[in-house]
Amino acid sequence: MFQELFSPSVQHSLDLAGIFVFAISGALLAVRKNFDVFGMAVLAEVTGLGGGLIRDLIIGAVPPAAFTDLGYFTMPLVATVLVFFLHPHVERIQGAVNVFDAAGLGLFCVTGTVKAHEYGLGLTASAALGLATAAGGGVLRDVLANEVPSLLRWDRDLYAVPAIVGATMVVVCIRFDALNGLTSVLAVVTAFVLRLLAMRFHWRAPRAYNRRSTAAEEPPGPKI
Amino acid sequence: MFQELFSPSVQHSLDLAGIFVFAISGALLAVRKNFDVFGMAVLAEVTGLGGGLIRDLIIGAVPPAAFTDLGYFTMPLVATVLVFFLHPHVERIQGAVNVFDAAGLGLFCVTGTVKAHEYGLGLTASAALGLATAAGGGVLRDVLANEVPSLLRWDRDLYAVPAIVGATMVVVCIRFDALNGLTSVLAVVTAFVLRLLAMRFHWRAPRAYNRRSTAAEEPPGPKI
Amino acid sequence: MFQELFSPSVQHSLDLAGIFVFAISGALLAVRKNFDVFGMAVLAEVTGLGGGLIRDLIIGAVPPAAFTDLGYFTMPLVATVLVFFLHPHVERIQGAVNVFDAAGLGLFCVTGTVKAHEYGLGLTASAALGLATAAGGGVLRDVLANEVPSLLRWDRDLYAVPAIVGATMVVVCIRFDALNGLTSVLAVVTAFVLRLLAMRFHWRAPRAYNRRSTAAEEPPGPKI
Repeated sequence: MFQELFSPSVQHSLDLAGIFVFAISGALLAVRKNFDVFGMAVLAEVTGLGGGLIRDLIIGAVPPAAFTDLGYFTMPLVATVLVFFLHPHVERIQGAVNVFDAAGLGLFCVTGTVKAHEYGLGLTASAALGLATAAGGGVLRDVLANEVPSLLRWDRDLYAVPAIVGATMVVVCIRFDALNGLTSVLAVVTAFVLRLLAMRFHWRAPRAYNRRSTAAEEPPGPKI
Repeated sequence: MFQELFSPSVQHSLDLAGIFVFAISGALLAVRKNFDVFGMAVLAEVTGLGGGLIRDLIIGAVPPAAFTDLGYFTMPLVATVLVFFLHPHVERIQGAVNVFDAAGLGLFCVTGTVKAHEYGLGLTASAALGLATAAGGGVLRDVLANEVPSLLRWDRDLYAVPAIVGATMVVVCIRFDALNGLTSVLAVVTAFVLRLLAMRFHWRAPRAYNRRSTAAEEPPGPKI
Repeated sequence: MFQELFSPSVQHSLDLAGIFVFAISGALLAVRKNFDVFGMAVLAEVTGLGGGLIRDLIIGAVPPAAFTDLGYFTMPLVATVLVFFLHPHVERIQGAVNVFDAAGLGLFCVTGTVKAHEYGLGLTASAALGLATAAGGGVLRDVLANEVPSLLRWDRDLYAVPAIVGATMVVVCIRFDALNGLTSVLAVVTAFVLRLLAMRFHWRAPRAYNRRSTAAEEPPGPKI
């Protein structure tokens, strides 16, 4: 049933598009970090394929899709070539890149959750892996670039929440046997729109209780 | 036989307690790094479940226990909520947290070694995975927080050695067919007490030979 | 057929030598980062075995060879002891270490590609895993040491290219059914010599287009 959410060719095209925009973000970070063209390609591959790779290793789907589908492997290389020659232009259309990245986030949190559930995981675990699929590539990208993952940072617009909402909608639909093409698209669109709104209005998640006051930024006592 | 080391419910409660205290250390680091509440949850999950996840991926136990037991997944969220509202108090009882962390270290180095051996690994490899189970979560935590893993740092009290001693005791017992509830508890307690002593007396491991003199800190020649 | 590329004992000795020299580089970095002896051992193990571990997890060869062959596990410990007592001397012969590291690179990009193909991966995916086998340990080493992976950095001599060339030669030979002991050795030697030449003449890969001018180093506009 799940395989019929979208027709296989539509699903595949969407996957390729999602991998491509994630890879763009990896290649752009590589340029900012002053990496060479091979560093760009490695970071693009890791960003585009990393989330699905983590999911596939955990559910035991080996070899992972990233290594069995030549198209998946090729998209990050295309992204690398594009950014290599055109990166000032790509940076200029950062807004457009962010919109596509939001689309990738929405898509992957849904397909990741569905695939994890197909492999027999429970509902909560499936939703957690949906989040890992959507956000894992970006975390690996930041770790390899030796930066604090932007997923975790307080001063970035909400990224995890839209993916969590989308994944949760999927598992609720599965629970009530209502997962079909329509509800899947609805979950993708919800996560996508939430992420767009988060970027538009700079929604942030709260930090721990007493860090919200400025005084807490510089605690008087010694730190461990 | 191995499954009967502890009764299943006792074993499960101990696992949950160990995951909880590890998750507390992850959530506290997230607060110090100024992450938002989702960053805290991610770091708590990774710290609490990461060691067992690495072990399960390596021995081929997929999906890993972290994704099949809802309790395992929930404990880090509880730890996040607690730290979110009470983190100044949690930091104040850092000493108590450290004691529980030492207990988790002792417990996980033993259960990790036993599980790896159950899956057919040799004695040395099992002990190595026992160490990875006990210390892996903390290493992932530090890598995600973009810090040098405290496991590796010279200026931290011994952490690996107690786990290595506990894991070694287990494989010696397995070798001589003497692994039972009593010897397991003995291994847990030994690792636990060694870690407490290391913290109490600030035991440190030596650095490479000529770095022990202060002069070596600033070598005259050019560095690569 | 593939198993007969080299006689098993020759293959095993070469693997041990490659693991050993990679582990040396890990232990040396640990000394520079001021880690203690256990941090040295952990970094040596990760550097020596990490590449093969990544490959084995992805192709589903669990438990990975790193955990089933005691010799693989022991070599990094030997490297640690050596560096611990003799590291000023080891640093002095850095040139020799680099030559051995280049040999390990050439060897592992070939054996990694062959093993991935034996497990049923396609030609492109096998070559990608050959690169991951050869370079993955060094990337894990740098991530654990909280440094930007030298594989990705612009200001380091070519490292990925020789491995990519070696792995590509292997898959071309497989494609035309010409993989045998002779062509395998040829691929190893080609990667090895390319890496030596890259170090000798400081070959670098280009960075993205407009970063090549000095002016681009300090872009005038605000950065994201």
